[in-house]
Amino acid sequence: MTAQLDLLKERLAVIHNLNRAGSVLGWDQQTYMPPGGSHARGEQMATIGRLAHETFVAGETGELLQTAAEEVKDLPAGSDDASLVRVAQRDYDQQRKIPAELVAEMTRHGAEAFQVWARARERNDYPAFAPYLQKTIGYSRQVAELLGYEDQPYDALLDIFEPGMKTAQVAAIFEELKKDLIPLVHAIAERQDRVDDSVLHQEFDEAKQEAFGKMAAGLYGYDFTRGRLDRTVHPFETSFSRNDVRITTRYEPDFFNPAFFSTLHETGHGLYEQNVGESLEGSLLARGASLGLHESQSRMWENVVGRSRGFWQYLYPQLQQTFPEALKDVDLDTFYRAINKVEPSLVRVEADEVTYNLHIMLRFEMELGFLDGSLSVDDGPEIWNQKMQSYLGITPPNDSLGILQDVHWSHGLMGYFTTYSLGNILSLQLYDAAIKARPEIPQQISQGRPDTLRCWLEENLYRHGRKFEPNELVQRITGEPIQSRSYMRYLKEKFGEIYGLDKSLPSPTQ
Amino acid sequence: MTAQLDLLKERLAVIHNLNRAGSVLGWDQQTYMPPGGSHARGEQMATIGRLAHETFVAGETGELLQTAAEEVKDLPAGSDDASLVRVAQRDYDQQRKIPAELVAEMTRHGAEAFQVWARARERNDYPAFAPYLQKTIGYSRQVAELLGYEDQPYDALLDIFEPGMKTAQVAAIFEELKKDLIPLVHAIAERQDRVDDSVLHQEFDEAKQEAFGKMAAGLYGYDFTRGRLDRTVHPFETSFSRNDVRITTRYEPDFFNPAFFSTLHETGHGLYEQNVGESLEGSLLARGASLGLHESQSRMWENVVGRSRGFWQYLYPQLQQTFPEALKDVDLDTFYRAINKVEPSLVRVEADEVTYNLHIMLRFEMELGFLDGSLSVDDGPEIWNQKMQSYLGITPPNDSLGILQDVHWSHGLMGYFTTYSLGNILSLQLYDAAIKARPEIPQQISQGRPDTLRCWLEENLYRHGRKFEPNELVQRITGEPIQSRSYMRYLKEKFGEIYGLDKSLPSPTQ
Repeated sequence: MTAQLDLLKERLAVIHNLNRAGSVLGWDQQTYMPPGGSHARGEQMATIGRLAHETFVAGETGELLQTAAEEVKDLPAGSDDASLVRVAQRDYDQQRKIPAELVAEMTRHGAEAFQVWARARERNDYPAFAPYLQKTIGYSRQVAELLGYEDQPYDALLDIFEPGMKTAQVAAIFEELKKDLIPLVHAIAERQDRVDDSVLHQEFDEAKQEAFGKMAAGLYGYDFTRGRLDRTVHPFETSFSRNDVRITTRYEPDFFNPAFFSTLHETGHGLYEQNVGESLEGSLLARGASLGLHESQSRMWENVVGRSRGFWQYLYPQLQQTFPEALKDVDLDTFYRAINKVEPSLVRVEADEVTYNLHIMLRFEMELGFLDGSLSVDDGPEIWNQKMQSYLGITPPNDSLGILQDVHWSHGLMGYFTTYSLGNILSLQLYDAAIKARPEIPQQISQGRPDTLRCWLEENLYRHGRKFEPNELVQRITGEPIQSRSYMRYLKEKFGEIYGLDKSLPSPTQ
Repeated sequence: MTAQLDLLKERLAVIHNLNRAGSVLGWDQQTYMPPGGSHARGEQMATIGRLAHETFVAGETGELLQTAAEEVKDLPAGSDDASLVRVAQRDYDQQRKIPAELVAEMTRHGAEAFQVWARARERNDYPAFAPYLQKTIGYSRQVAELLGYEDQPYDALLDIFEPGMKTAQVAAIFEELKKDLIPLVHAIAERQDRVDDSVLHQEFDEAKQEAFGKMAAGLYGYDFTRGRLDRTVHPFETSFSRNDVRITTRYEPDFFNPAFFSTLHETGHGLYEQNVGESLEGSLLARGASLGLHESQSRMWENVVGRSRGFWQYLYPQLQQTFPEALKDVDLDTFYRAINKVEPSLVRVEADEVTYNLHIMLRFEMELGFLDGSLSVDDGPEIWNQKMQSYLGITPPNDSLGILQDVHWSHGLMGYFTTYSLGNILSLQLYDAAIKARPEIPQQISQGRPDTLRCWLEENLYRHGRKFEPNELVQRITGEPIQSRSYMRYLKEKFGEIYGLDKSLPSPTQ
């Protein structure tokens, strides 16, 4: 009855195992590999990646997909098997459209562009990077044309990371958010003196930071028998199965934030991966539904929970006990305000919860312009700086701290930045839905028991893996399309209180 | 001109990269993988192993081997390319002879037999394990028949681990060695009171043990920019390329030997792998020539150098400084004698340099008997105990400490044990050749500079990888076939001095 489906699953399992093996190699590369190992590791990862890709896009996969689709056509659309065939077909169609030679060409370009970008950033030499950015844009356009789109090229790129989402939808959400966000940022910028975060810049023993971070991840429900926390230059989460999900962080001995909040952030990603439904294990559905939904979880656990007053009501006494020299004379309120300090700044990766999205919107708007030709590469720095001034009220002193700051465009990734802001927005829309269903959540968090929240997320989001597209999932879970209202209300209430802002600021909640 | 050879190399590179990727997964499995990861890891490793094997034994490989052989037929036999084709053909022929279904069947049997063996050892229940051992013997015979042999089945199994070596050759070497070894062991056993190793059983801080072991590995020339030392339950060495060679050890807080000497042991393996010729990198020649030759290096650096008086003349003051509480009142001679204590004991893995080989010979003789049918599985324990009594003067109180002690036979590995003793024997034959060529080596070792020894080994052994068979290599390096004379002379001189033995003991050197 399901003979073809079984054959399809067998074939996909080989590809899955190759891809996950490649992830193990990548994890090792960033954690424990000695420097000498990099050349051979590149070869090993390239071989595995190529085999996985070739096996997936081979004609045999397409034939199995067709015959298997026939077998599952009477199953409910949300069943594991029907979803598997549907999502696999989607991936297959997408990957078949990009010829292997183009992928290889883009990979080579990316490697070269990365080197040029690193030098250009070091020397503040945008003109040196500009021709490579131009080429990256060309490749992005080419990929968009090959993938196809109805409305505009950016749709095709966005669809890689956020299946089914459209540029117009994102643009509308961002426009609405921006309307309230810019006045909020400016209002806070005028009250910089309200928050002092110097208490976070003291000596924090690394081993104690690590133990405290692990304790907090455990408190969130991250399962260390099915995961681990290691050190890397750039924190990340990666998974080899739902039962082997690794996270990493980095420690600064004289600043509390980087290790702790990146641990919570990666824990959020990890919770998602550890709790994908067991029935999906070993299939290509065993992943988060999209980058945006993944980011909604890292942001929810990092910010919405991890920077909330309630959470620290519970945890702060323990933190004081862990670091008595630094914190014994610092009260909860001072600490809470410090970890929530907002300050317009030049560099995205150092941006706070409020200003972060404006960094993203700037990039979104520029990518749209680059792609449709309305913005030339030569005008890049000027537009960047104008937008920084208009959104955040500051102008980069040089391009290294401006348009050259991110690695993404060197790799040829366009359409990716957007998912960061979608994650922020979704974190609150989902959190509000959770609270509506389980009003006891905030109180439980302030008692150190975020279990109800995690279980609700597991039930409503995590367990489904990639079975549904983001728009469908959000509608199912929250009863409405993606909206920025919840997020904006959260920002206004939380930071209005911290910065003592006038209640008369326009509020979309009223 | 070498178009076919290039195609062959390309194909072999894919297989090589898959195999090395599998090794990374295996390393992670034993070092950092959380317990939950084991099921998926098994799947990933199985997929990679199967793809590598299928690609290698496919008909296309055979065709490329034939046409490439034509291209290299005028090259010198010792050239990289001619060696590659020859060794690849050998591996190909060997692996083609064992059907994939048989391999799968043996793997399943091994997994089951392992469980049964573990339970049987725990409960001292040999009869429970006996049928599985019988089946293992059956598989070993079947493999031997499929591989083919001229003289006896054991030849075929030995050839897997020691290409070109024959059972008769090993038997003759072992017989000669045994003649002198048994009297030596008995003479030492009567003088147990001459050596006291209680100084080694004190408190040794684990972090300090680790730092000291790393320092010693570095002193040997192990390159930590191309390797690392981690912790595992069972120490091992594994390599992903000559530039990424990992070793592991385990620490006991109240016994100095296990971590330190296993670190030196694995460092010996690591030195071999790190110094395989660069031109062989990425090919199937980039490995030690055989298990015996590999073991000759672990044993040379662990024992011949690492347990020598000269080495500790240099290193002991540093060890005393590292562990002043344990060692400040212990003189060099006491320490040197302690780390060289000889004591007939029941368990192979805990055996010392002198008695170790008798454990191996016992297993070699029993494997021969099992294979040719002259020894029945039912008689196993009795023969084991008789040999223990005759060789080592002790009889196991039960089978758990006797015939059930090793994991090897549960996995169906016969022919493997032999390589341990070949390694011991070769370690001295090679060391003597090194000293003959570079008489300054012992003095340099006692000054903490074993560089000349390592470079001589690199030049004469390591760099050749798998280009030559063991017999050929040993003849090239030492000017004679494998012999146990050097090894026996070393044992008599070293332990004769330590235990104050009568010089009139028969010596093969005179």
